Amino acid sequence: MNIIIRNATVLTMESEDMVKGDIGIKNDRIAFIGEKPESFEPDYEINADTCLAMPGLVNAHTHSAMSLLRNYADDIPFWEWLTEKVWPVEAKMNGSDVYWGTMISIAEMIQCGTTAYADMYFHSEETAKASCEAGIRCSVAKGLIGSSDEDEQRFADTRSLYQEWHGAGDGIITIMAGPHAPYTCDPSFLHKVSEFCSELNIPIHIHLSESEKEIEESIKNHGKSPIAHVHNIGLFKHHTLAAHCVHLLPGDIQLLEEGNVHVVHNPLSNLKLGNGTAPVMEMKQAGVKLTLGTDSSCSNNNLNLFEEMKMASLLAKGKTFDSTVLSAYETLEIATINGCKALNLDGTIGALKPGNKADLILIDMDKPHWYPHQNLKSSLVYSSHGSDVATVIINGKIVMEKRELKTIDLEKVKYESQRIVERII
Amino acid sequence: MNIIIRNATVLTMESEDMVKGDIGIKNDRIAFIGEKPESFEPDYEINADTCLAMPGLVNAHTHSAMSLLRNYADDIPFWEWLTEKVWPVEAKMNGSDVYWGTMISIAEMIQCGTTAYADMYFHSEETAKASCEAGIRCSVAKGLIGSSDEDEQRFADTRSLYQEWHGAGDGIITIMAGPHAPYTCDPSFLHKVSEFCSELNIPIHIHLSESEKEIEESIKNHGKSPIAHVHNIGLFKHHTLAAHCVHLLPGDIQLLEEGNVHVVHNPLSNLKLGNGTAPVMEMKQAGVKLTLGTDSSCSNNNLNLFEEMKMASLLAKGKTFDSTVLSAYETLEIATINGCKALNLDGTIGALKPGNKADLILIDMDKPHWYPHQNLKSSLVYSSHGSDVATVIINGKIVMEKRELKTIDLEKVKYESQRIVERII
Repeated sequence: MNIIIRNATVLTMESEDMVKGDIGIKNDRIAFIGEKPESFEPDYEINADTCLAMPGLVNAHTHSAMSLLRNYADDIPFWEWLTEKVWPVEAKMNGSDVYWGTMISIAEMIQCGTTAYADMYFHSEETAKASCEAGIRCSVAKGLIGSSDEDEQRFADTRSLYQEWHGAGDGIITIMAGPHAPYTCDPSFLHKVSEFCSELNIPIHIHLSESEKEIEESIKNHGKSPIAHVHNIGLFKHHTLAAHCVHLLPGDIQLLEEGNVHVVHNPLSNLKLGNGTAPVMEMKQAGVKLTLGTDSSCSNNNLNLFEEMKMASLLAKGKTFDSTVLSAYETLEIATINGCKALNLDGTIGALKPGNKADLILIDMDKPHWYPHQNLKSSLVYSSHGSDVATVIINGKIVMEKRELKTIDLEKVKYESQRIVERII
Repeated sequence: MNIIIRNATVLTMESEDMVKGDIGIKNDRIAFIGEKPESFEPDYEINADTCLAMPGLVNAHTHSAMSLLRNYADDIPFWEWLTEKVWPVEAKMNGSDVYWGTMISIAEMIQCGTTAYADMYFHSEETAKASCEAGIRCSVAKGLIGSSDEDEQRFADTRSLYQEWHGAGDGIITIMAGPHAPYTCDPSFLHKVSEFCSELNIPIHIHLSESEKEIEESIKNHGKSPIAHVHNIGLFKHHTLAAHCVHLLPGDIQLLEEGNVHVVHNPLSNLKLGNGTAPVMEMKQAGVKLTLGTDSSCSNNNLNLFEEMKMASLLAKGKTFDSTVLSAYETLEIATINGCKALNLDGTIGALKPGNKADLILIDMDKPHWYPHQNLKSSLVYSSHGSDVATVIINGKIVMEKRELKTIDLEKVKYESQRIVERII
């Protein structure tokens, strides 16, 4: 299908400049930006007079099915939250629960302008299935915890996931390996993970250096920081999505910069669980590849990357006592272009330009909190709401138009999510 | 007029418990909550099946007309921002500009559930006029800067403002004195402010201890912190709204606690201008009266108290490395009940209970980011968007219903705000 978006203000993310014009989409790809070529015959037209068009946001770290646990356990100590609240409920969750929990998250993510996300959880085939049905781009990792005899089964599960789902939905589903964290995976298991990733040529999605306790235990058990530990094992030779990286020891930043590592900053979850704020500016200045994630709705408690962008920028300014750092445009790069690279999708999606896959969002600027219109990049990061997103296109397909979800039966999803928590909580 | 709100989930803020039932409003006051008395005959009915009702949020520190400068000067050093960007543009602003700048802010505040705010700016009669017309409760302070021969004129201006506007709009407008800050007001001038407040029996709205530079200069000029300095002058014997209080010296917290002071926490503005984060938990544990503000859209860059609530709670947890502090309910208290007290309106507005003035908001919970419904207080603080606010009632008058503003010609306000900045910027 040929779609034309008329009269948008376009932030391509190829540069900071705004372009006023039309956007043409042919099947799954951007055909043109600016003036419609004579040869382009649209089948469907979207009026974007009051809208800003930009690449969709990328949520590089979440556990989408955990939205079932949204607002269920807050304001309690981290360890109690994890062991007495999260784990017992997760033990009751089946594949169908993960499907519906993922689906309510996808509805929210699309409504907030997210077009791609990286997930780590269990029953991950259900995450792939829900993403495929809803038409959202997803890098799926099945959490791997390795200290038992079930190792081989775990690798076999990810292998099946890869065989069944990698490239599904016209390429919107990709698979990663998901070793949960160095404190839940033995060194010998992490070595196996590394071999397994070489075999399938897939990236790694892992939690690293989230809490102080984790650092202390790593030093006690391995004599080095979690980052140095997994670097020594060789994980960083693979494309690695490293979530958190809040508590760093000397040398850690250099290892992150030198490795094939994309650090996912999760500012709200890190604050909410009492872990503090990652040293984003030190990492950025050292050249570490940075991107953004929400973590799950159980520690955030939403999946709104507009909130996450604003707070990433403001926390960087507040932490360094320097109002000039992490500008609005740099923050937008982290949440879009850098996210595409982190999900190993560079060359497929990224800036809005002819030939790239059409993953883009239209944001309605006709709201009081956008007025007067001045620097629109500032508006995007500092003033806008997630709910300003009007229309979302992923892989050339309209998944939301004028706030109406096109691929999700929202009434059923809300009903099912409520029904499930009444059983498991 | 008698209004009935049917079947709401009500958080009265008298306690943490939710009540399911109807709310009756008779003229400007709440008539009942729960079951409709036989004698109550509604003229107008609002269905709140999917809505949570709660007291409106209070924005205890802003400069509403500065929304004209929204997204005009970001990511630059504080001093350059203030002296090279803000002041030159403000010098071009006339009364009409302040009226339209205030009106675009009021539209945004109502859409985000704010029912009362405290403002400090100039041409403040226009702020009072706009608030009165839009029907939003406002404590208006005209900024006083005292180091010139114009002292008497400045007091005369606030006296006129008081005479003309105090109690206007059926009591929704009240007046405060607005000495800008100890670094822009000489000690002798602050003494006069104190006498002036005694004469009119009005509260004070002042900026205190916002930046490190301010502390250093206060010590150099007065030999003590800004807080100790204004305490010595006697300001704290008046009801005082003290915005910021980010950088505190030993003894400051005790002075704030002992004085008649309400500290306004402005977490986002403080981060964005590179000033850091106020020691909220130290103040709270010492018994300091705390409330919440957005500051202006020139340093935030919106007026969304839902964002401010979430970040107040998360920053407190992140700064103390303790996920249990500033719970969702405590944060709601700070943004509602404490705000009413800070604006000196305790006894008029506050909790939802019969006899209190009807300032309340209905929040639509039928959104993906609210599902599944569990702890709704957590949802309000951690998951919701400002744009979930559906209906707003102030002083018994419906100012927004189903997102439609009833007292503001939004098209005209947007047009005027844009026209103005094209002249002054």
